[in-house]
Amino acid sequence: MTKHFVPENPNNLVKDCLQGYIVCNEHLSVLYHEKVIFNNKFDSSQVCLISGGGSGHEPGWAGLVGNGMLAACAQGEVFASPNFKNIQAAEKTVHSQKGCILVITNYTGDNLYFGMAQQELLARYGPGHVKLLRCTDDAAIPRSTNSLVGRRTLAGVGIVIKMMGAATQLPHLSLDDIYHFGETVNRNVISINAGLDHVHIPGHAPDSDYGKLQPNEIEIGLGIHNEPGFVKLSSIPTNEALISDMLQYMLSQDDPERSYLKYDSSDQFILLFNNLGGLPVIEEKALLFQTVTQLDRDYGIVPHRVLAGNFVTSLNASIFTITLFNVTKTAGMFTEQQLFDLFDQPTNATNWPNYVDHTASTGNYKDRIIKSFAHYDEFVPDTTNDVQIDPQTLYNILHTGSRNLIRMEPLITEWDTKMGDGDCGKMLEIAANGVLLGLDQGEGMATNGSILTCLNRILAILSNDMGGTLGAILYIFMKSFINNLTINLGSSQTDIRLIFATSLSSAIETLKGFTKAREGHRTVMDVLIPFVRVFGDTLDIYKAVDAAEAAAEGTRKLAPKLGRATYVGGLENKKDFVPDPGAYGVYEAIRGLRCL
Amino acid sequence: MTKHFVPENPNNLVKDCLQGYIVCNEHLSVLYHEKVIFNNKFDSSQVCLISGGGSGHEPGWAGLVGNGMLAACAQGEVFASPNFKNIQAAEKTVHSQKGCILVITNYTGDNLYFGMAQQELLARYGPGHVKLLRCTDDAAIPRSTNSLVGRRTLAGVGIVIKMMGAATQLPHLSLDDIYHFGETVNRNVISINAGLDHVHIPGHAPDSDYGKLQPNEIEIGLGIHNEPGFVKLSSIPTNEALISDMLQYMLSQDDPERSYLKYDSSDQFILLFNNLGGLPVIEEKALLFQTVTQLDRDYGIVPHRVLAGNFVTSLNASIFTITLFNVTKTAGMFTEQQLFDLFDQPTNATNWPNYVDHTASTGNYKDRIIKSFAHYDEFVPDTTNDVQIDPQTLYNILHTGSRNLIRMEPLITEWDTKMGDGDCGKMLEIAANGVLLGLDQGEGMATNGSILTCLNRILAILSNDMGGTLGAILYIFMKSFINNLTINLGSSQTDIRLIFATSLSSAIETLKGFTKAREGHRTVMDVLIPFVRVFGDTLDIYKAVDAAEAAAEGTRKLAPKLGRATYVGGLENKKDFVPDPGAYGVYEAIRGLRCL
Repeated sequence: MTKHFVPENPNNLVKDCLQGYIVCNEHLSVLYHEKVIFNNKFDSSQVCLISGGGSGHEPGWAGLVGNGMLAACAQGEVFASPNFKNIQAAEKTVHSQKGCILVITNYTGDNLYFGMAQQELLARYGPGHVKLLRCTDDAAIPRSTNSLVGRRTLAGVGIVIKMMGAATQLPHLSLDDIYHFGETVNRNVISINAGLDHVHIPGHAPDSDYGKLQPNEIEIGLGIHNEPGFVKLSSIPTNEALISDMLQYMLSQDDPERSYLKYDSSDQFILLFNNLGGLPVIEEKALLFQTVTQLDRDYGIVPHRVLAGNFVTSLNASIFTITLFNVTKTAGMFTEQQLFDLFDQPTNATNWPNYVDHTASTGNYKDRIIKSFAHYDEFVPDTTNDVQIDPQTLYNILHTGSRNLIRMEPLITEWDTKMGDGDCGKMLEIAANGVLLGLDQGEGMATNGSILTCLNRILAILSNDMGGTLGAILYIFMKSFINNLTINLGSSQTDIRLIFATSLSSAIETLKGFTKAREGHRTVMDVLIPFVRVFGDTLDIYKAVDAAEAAAEGTRKLAPKLGRATYVGGLENKKDFVPDPGAYGVYEAIRGLRCL
Repeated sequence: MTKHFVPENPNNLVKDCLQGYIVCNEHLSVLYHEKVIFNNKFDSSQVCLISGGGSGHEPGWAGLVGNGMLAACAQGEVFASPNFKNIQAAEKTVHSQKGCILVITNYTGDNLYFGMAQQELLARYGPGHVKLLRCTDDAAIPRSTNSLVGRRTLAGVGIVIKMMGAATQLPHLSLDDIYHFGETVNRNVISINAGLDHVHIPGHAPDSDYGKLQPNEIEIGLGIHNEPGFVKLSSIPTNEALISDMLQYMLSQDDPERSYLKYDSSDQFILLFNNLGGLPVIEEKALLFQTVTQLDRDYGIVPHRVLAGNFVTSLNASIFTITLFNVTKTAGMFTEQQLFDLFDQPTNATNWPNYVDHTASTGNYKDRIIKSFAHYDEFVPDTTNDVQIDPQTLYNILHTGSRNLIRMEPLITEWDTKMGDGDCGKMLEIAANGVLLGLDQGEGMATNGSILTCLNRILAILSNDMGGTLGAILYIFMKSFINNLTINLGSSQTDIRLIFATSLSSAIETLKGFTKAREGHRTVMDVLIPFVRVFGDTLDIYKAVDAAEAAAEGTRKLAPKLGRATYVGGLENKKDFVPDPGAYGVYEAIRGLRCL
């Protein structure tokens, strides 16, 4: 995707974005020219945490400003470090006597500009007042090269900020305490990215972005600014194979090039699953589940908290990050339980999810995957107030209607092929064959002449054997008819024809709630509506069937207004059509009622 | 993006996704085979709300299951309705004596399958026990055609569910009360989509998706399943123009084809800004801000709550929705304040943001955009313990160093062009010219022989006129040197050489925190480190300058290990290089110290 939504003045993109954050969250304000977002309710008796970096990583740092997280963040342009004077502006606006920690990403530019700001602030406030903590959770860079370029941060920065931020709310902790705590957390966080392509930057030429992947390629170990990864595969592995590889890079304890994160199988973990912006959520969550499954199966790790979503994005990259935080190995200044309490501490930061709370130990997830659910028992229709007719007549009605449909199938199919998707005839034939089978096999459905039994068995055929819109429409009509008939048969009304008429009429009303089609729209409604109306008006089933016939034939004069047939062009001036196949088919079934 | 992450068995994509939801949120369980997510702590004394629909719209309904929102949702395959038996399974697992409301999307399939489930449940539990509410917030479909196809839901379904869900927690309200309330909310919600392209569906051939847009096209009014919009533009408008058009479709009160939402300018609103999955967050938030700006400016509407993010996605479509909810016109059963209270009611639904709380009236956003921030006053260096030398000597040192740099510029540029990005010589020349100007203009920087004055003015030149990595590195070194010098000059140490040596050494240590480069890596550190070390060892500035010279010359023997030069291939076997331009340039400046 090389198209973008940008303001009239494209240079306002970052500023507009930051203002977008503050309209969502009343706790935030923005220094407009300085591109700084800050917590306008920051309690300056606490150590202030400040972060920031290039834009294009939203929610990134802007989403983590709030009570118990960042006091402020300073943003640069897309993928560019913030100006060091703006970093100082962030510090000034949330200045704390207790000192400040710059929690940064360790990308070259951020490192240098936050470093410049730190030196400035040290001159102003004296040694020790401003600390700088580099987050370095990326496992991509092997030991043999990271002595020179250094590890960088991926989504792990979010965990470091959450833990440190919660610690700043504890009054007895000093700046140094929180700094050292942050170092310990950072040492116990590890991340890795995998992705399907690099990303296009707004304002760049469509073909200018370095390192695009081929249509089948995938990369492991990419950075968050189109930095290439360390492995490129020429075909996309299954989720199972990909996650397996990634976890090995993160967790193998005997890889001399990595093994960055030490753990024992009894350790407790927090898992953060980060979508870098362009992964469909359905794929994000499916990959997350695969990660949890393999951590459990292959490493004995069941994370006790799991976060998923956008944390540190790279515009709309189809890249994701797995980040693990070893809580147990972080214990020292705090116990394991206290660490979870810090993590669970509520915050009003825009991007912190609301489902992380002290009740939310997700380690029991397997108990919550229910594979043996008992559906409702088969519904036993209430036939207390059944109505029975001569079994042979009932048989004849159903048999004739079904035979009519089967005989008409080739013609209905031909009509539907001309102006629909061609499956109408076969669908109706399947249902008709179901009815014939039901009449003749085992205890035939007409055997005891029970109307309710017959209707319910036809309904089962509609739901099991028929599909598509027509099947659903007929099902709703029939089921509503049965529901109403069951109730009305229990009423004081004794004229059975009136009971049928009322029940049919209610069923039509129900059906009208589910389709906007009415008479004249060339659908099954063209037959159902007049059939029910004429029967209601006359209580004469033969007249009703005649009305259905006339209506079915009348669809030859109707231009399509709904459904697939409307896509066929050039019909405006036509006067003669084939009949509507659904309407005609239903009339053929109804015609069986002439056997009454 | 036609690449996807899918499980080994692609048919497990939806199930894996649903399991991904429950590992994040302990309050959720999943009926695995039925593709149903439910609130496992649902209080069945409340009316249960059930929704669902096709997958690929995550967080969609799955993200809205939780206390005070949905009791359960039933999911279909990607872009396909759930099976009606699974909808019944959802109802069974959270069955409430008080009844059930199916809150649905009004897409054809959902409408029919939820309708079938409703009829089934009515048969089982009797009339009135199960209601079906269709959400219809989309403004795309004009009146003249929607009599046939009906309006559908976009992201507005989230607001209807939030309001109804909060109402289910009020014990005095009946099923009918909540249903009618839902209808009223739905009538007062309006949405519209705009987007840059249709989306590719996992499992489809790369070129099989209908209606792709051209590289410059944009569409307004698209649906959430690649349904085309009602306007296609052949070039992408600015955010300003696009939002203006969209708001007009939503809010114009005299458009006979739309005007779906009635409002007065005193009405209170909630705004939901929905990213359909593939918009970079930076663009999402910038568009949101433009929306808020125009609502305020052109319609007198200042939304009192603003939500933004992924609500109802279409895989990773580069599409967004603006959704407005007129709270005032919804008042009746509840007062306006009570409606906001319902909206603000906390929930543990996975996708409900944590920043919506009773304190969060965002209507004061303009006060929180600070356009006149006062930076820190210019830092006034502490020169109480300054050290002064003969002004003419100081002048000579700085003048010579600067002239050296200017004279060497062509050569440094040539070297840097061969193995760097070519700007090093010019950068150093700019700084040198700045120093020359400072020496001779106004009160010359060397006039009173103050070392601290000179150093601070050079620092200002570095920060204002120089850029790039070298500028930042020199700035950090110089600032740290000044900071340490200021402190050490106040100490009891009387040997000025020792004070300089200690301060330089501290500055080198600081710098080592910001770059991994050391001696031998062919950077400016090759000169700085030995210069400081030799001066520390000997306290002899001439020997230190000699060491700097030897080191600068020595970079001719060093292959690059860091920075852009490493990208130039074929250097492995080379023995002779040009000197490192940064290192050599810094030596040329240092060489001025021979004037001491």
